[in-house]
Amino acid sequence: MTALRERPLAGHVQLTGRSAIGGRFIEGPTLPAHAFHSLNPGTGENIEPTFHPATDEQVDSACLAAWDAFGDFSGTAPSRRARLLETIATEVRDIGELLVSTVMAETGLGEERIVAERDRTMDTLRQLADAVRDGRWMEPIIDRGEPNRRPPKADIRRMLQPMGPAAVFGASNFPLAYSVAGGDTASALAVGCPVIFKGHPSHPATSELVARAVMAAVEGCGLPAGTFSYLVAGGPREQAVGSLLVRNPCVRAVGFTGSISGGVALSKLAADRLDPIPVYAEMGSVNPVVMLPGAIEKHSEAATQQLAASITESCGQQCTRPGMIFLHASYAADKFLADLANRMEAAGPGTMLSVRLRRNLVGRIERAEAARGVEMIASWDPKLRAERPGPVRAYPVLMRTPAAVFREHIALREEFFGPVAVAVVCASTTDMLRALAMVQGSLTGTIWAEPGDEADTRRVHTMMEQRVGRLIYNGVPTGVRVAPAMVHGGPYPATNRPESSAQGPTAIRRWCRPVCFQETPDHLLPPALQAGNPLKIERLVNGKASREPTPTK
Amino acid sequence: MTALRERPLAGHVQLTGRSAIGGRFIEGPTLPAHAFHSLNPGTGENIEPTFHPATDEQVDSACLAAWDAFGDFSGTAPSRRARLLETIATEVRDIGELLVSTVMAETGLGEERIVAERDRTMDTLRQLADAVRDGRWMEPIIDRGEPNRRPPKADIRRMLQPMGPAAVFGASNFPLAYSVAGGDTASALAVGCPVIFKGHPSHPATSELVARAVMAAVEGCGLPAGTFSYLVAGGPREQAVGSLLVRNPCVRAVGFTGSISGGVALSKLAADRLDPIPVYAEMGSVNPVVMLPGAIEKHSEAATQQLAASITESCGQQCTRPGMIFLHASYAADKFLADLANRMEAAGPGTMLSVRLRRNLVGRIERAEAARGVEMIASWDPKLRAERPGPVRAYPVLMRTPAAVFREHIALREEFFGPVAVAVVCASTTDMLRALAMVQGSLTGTIWAEPGDEADTRRVHTMMEQRVGRLIYNGVPTGVRVAPAMVHGGPYPATNRPESSAQGPTAIRRWCRPVCFQETPDHLLPPALQAGNPLKIERLVNGKASREPTPTK
Repeated sequence: MTALRERPLAGHVQLTGRSAIGGRFIEGPTLPAHAFHSLNPGTGENIEPTFHPATDEQVDSACLAAWDAFGDFSGTAPSRRARLLETIATEVRDIGELLVSTVMAETGLGEERIVAERDRTMDTLRQLADAVRDGRWMEPIIDRGEPNRRPPKADIRRMLQPMGPAAVFGASNFPLAYSVAGGDTASALAVGCPVIFKGHPSHPATSELVARAVMAAVEGCGLPAGTFSYLVAGGPREQAVGSLLVRNPCVRAVGFTGSISGGVALSKLAADRLDPIPVYAEMGSVNPVVMLPGAIEKHSEAATQQLAASITESCGQQCTRPGMIFLHASYAADKFLADLANRMEAAGPGTMLSVRLRRNLVGRIERAEAARGVEMIASWDPKLRAERPGPVRAYPVLMRTPAAVFREHIALREEFFGPVAVAVVCASTTDMLRALAMVQGSLTGTIWAEPGDEADTRRVHTMMEQRVGRLIYNGVPTGVRVAPAMVHGGPYPATNRPESSAQGPTAIRRWCRPVCFQETPDHLLPPALQAGNPLKIERLVNGKASREPTPTK
Repeated sequence: MTALRERPLAGHVQLTGRSAIGGRFIEGPTLPAHAFHSLNPGTGENIEPTFHPATDEQVDSACLAAWDAFGDFSGTAPSRRARLLETIATEVRDIGELLVSTVMAETGLGEERIVAERDRTMDTLRQLADAVRDGRWMEPIIDRGEPNRRPPKADIRRMLQPMGPAAVFGASNFPLAYSVAGGDTASALAVGCPVIFKGHPSHPATSELVARAVMAAVEGCGLPAGTFSYLVAGGPREQAVGSLLVRNPCVRAVGFTGSISGGVALSKLAADRLDPIPVYAEMGSVNPVVMLPGAIEKHSEAATQQLAASITESCGQQCTRPGMIFLHASYAADKFLADLANRMEAAGPGTMLSVRLRRNLVGRIERAEAARGVEMIASWDPKLRAERPGPVRAYPVLMRTPAAVFREHIALREEFFGPVAVAVVCASTTDMLRALAMVQGSLTGTIWAEPGDEADTRRVHTMMEQRVGRLIYNGVPTGVRVAPAMVHGGPYPATNRPESSAQGPTAIRRWCRPVCFQETPDHLLPPALQAGNPLKIERLVNGKASREPTPTK
């Protein structure tokens, strides 16, 4: 095969439809019974080429290649890993228009959203590159020895070290930001963990394009070829590829973004290994919003406009989409909800990522509307819900229900993955707090409040903070800022690891464990801990932040 | 019942033998069928009084009390929690001689060791108090908003927040440092998590004394009574109390120190909850030691002396005890091992914590010595291994085996919980590396090396670092320094959470999750994130460490 660098990525790329292991796409015979296509949900037609899922042997080869690469890759200078991340960002950008049009065809997402997502993916890669160079995020801590004390105190030096090869599973709804070169891949590579990426079957062409970009960057930076492998998964082998990966002894940690059932199944597989490994799964989030009366009075127009856009954007297929709105019963609340319903209906139908997601959504809506006491104030005509060939469309839905009904029916409290929200009308603050107490763990919670709402605000805040990873005032939860203080995570089932974040430099912790070096000869220490501080990074030395060298023993 | 402060702890304390929930010891009828005693392993006799395990209802009450206390306790100022930890340290110290003699009777450990362990427990409490006041360990990060930018950037502020009530399981082998007021209790209280403590059945009298000290501190600091509860577990209800705790919906995280089977069982129970919670389990560790030729030549005397002491101290019942010694075959190695065997035999028999541990140890030794190719160079006379009434004694054992035999027999590679080590004699560096590759995850690994050993050192170092949480040069792994750079943790089965440490201020992370506050009114932020920085702590503001206030919006 020709070297990757010689193949122009932009323009007319011939996709192979195959997995790539250790820098090379698989060649040779394929099994027609396993082949699959991706669907253009905007037209309902199959997209070329045919894709061929990885075989058992190929999964194993990718894991072995990652294992073989681990020693060298984890030992690279931080500056080289930073350059790798920046090169990936450049290579992804350089795919150009072809990437945008491929994502559009495979996902039905709009051009503006895709360009924004691509830029945000590049921003994440670059911020992680900065974090790797900065060095503080590797948490170097040095407690110097006191050899003359009785008993003597040992010199101990600790920092985060990479766990080993990481298996990363792509999400369907963020085909760039949470896929091949997304946050999990970037944070794992940042710390020196080789990545074996399992592509999502709904966007295999997109995945192959980005996998080529990552491989070109690995090759361009002169890193071991096993640093990154890409496995095609889909058709009858979607689950097989994933479970083989999680059980492979070379894999030391797993990142997953997807459904609750998928995340829970992978976590159990990992826990049942002879040597259990961590799985970081981001799963389902309902993202409650509380609209307090003063805020409705002051911000009705802005809030309905922002909420309608946030609920319907990308056809509601965003993990931070607001899914529940809690309000006190009042004339103003009635008007607020009527306005919101109008705006959501005005947004019109959107394109869903897949027939499967649409089918699940229709089933969820029908179970919810069957509950007595649920009123559909923005509705998706049941005649339009039937599955037909052609575009995969979904219409916005806003349901309205008293808090008592909400508390009774689990069908109203689980996530609707689509442009759907449930408005919960509460008779009192107690009624609202009881309803909020039944909201499951979420990535975000939002409170719209004004000074006049103070009495409710603190109680709602306290209740909400227990249930979310990020609490927002007077805004919408979509549009996650990429910055160190961001938390993209939350209590179960938003994630299975609420102590972790999928965004920001602290995301690198998921791929690391701390290692302490006691009385270790200087030349055997990682550079970040050496006496001379050759990386010139900030370290915590005897409790004080310092960029100074420590005296040699 | 009388308030705790009115009961003198030192002197003649009347132990109740009961659990304490929300600041009060349980009164009323007991179930004789559930009662149990602790054993004095130095004499083989039962210790008074009779202990009564918590009932199902009592476990539930303790969890509810913790839940009710959580809101207030988690909202306390850091300085109050710091004072709580310091007050616990003082109260534990003030139990005085009674505590030392009680631990001696229940564990058979020596006075010097117990006093050292008590002082170390107090040191841990005080260092965590310092960390709570310091504030950096709560990781406050502020990324200020850019409201005038298009699109505007939101103000986001993030810090660690407590998860909720913590269930902590005490270990048998560190009746103070990893028991009622040990590291897990201290780090959970430090961040504002109420603690429900499950006492270890082998030292219930010790546990009750320390539980009283913690309760007195909680009361003395004016904190909610549900901040700490203590559950007696043992006899037929040992497992029931533990599993009820882990499944209770009020419990949000679990700390455990004990056997692999216990830790794995609790992890599975927690994973099978409707809302899975984290379990931090420290389990088994073999703590490999590599003696390279140059080090044997230079340090033979010091190394055999330190290793023999480290292996036999506290009858080998320390989680960081060196359990395997790898050496190159040579005349010097033979002599080294003969010296080590002599020193171990000279240490004589020790007292084990319990009949059960002794029985397990004898079984493990007999399985290991049955392997062809294992030579017992310091031996425990089979006639002395039979169980008899009276003192629970164990004798040091040193086995010697070629690396090939070590690789074949899992009985040689699992932990011996007692004064036992396996010397693995290697024919070459390759032979040594292959043997090391089969060593399971450990808390520690130790390398004795001198400059002449350089060729081997780096390869052994790389292999060892993958398997341990702490790597030590030219020393012994026992005697864990309490300091920020310490890592007490490691890959499975040393722990199930290698990303965590049970020592140092980073231990508080196990009880926390990060929460991000977006565009949140200043008075609703935790003090650590407020604009005025009322706690005067160091925060990361727009990427720079700062103790300055941030401008108000």
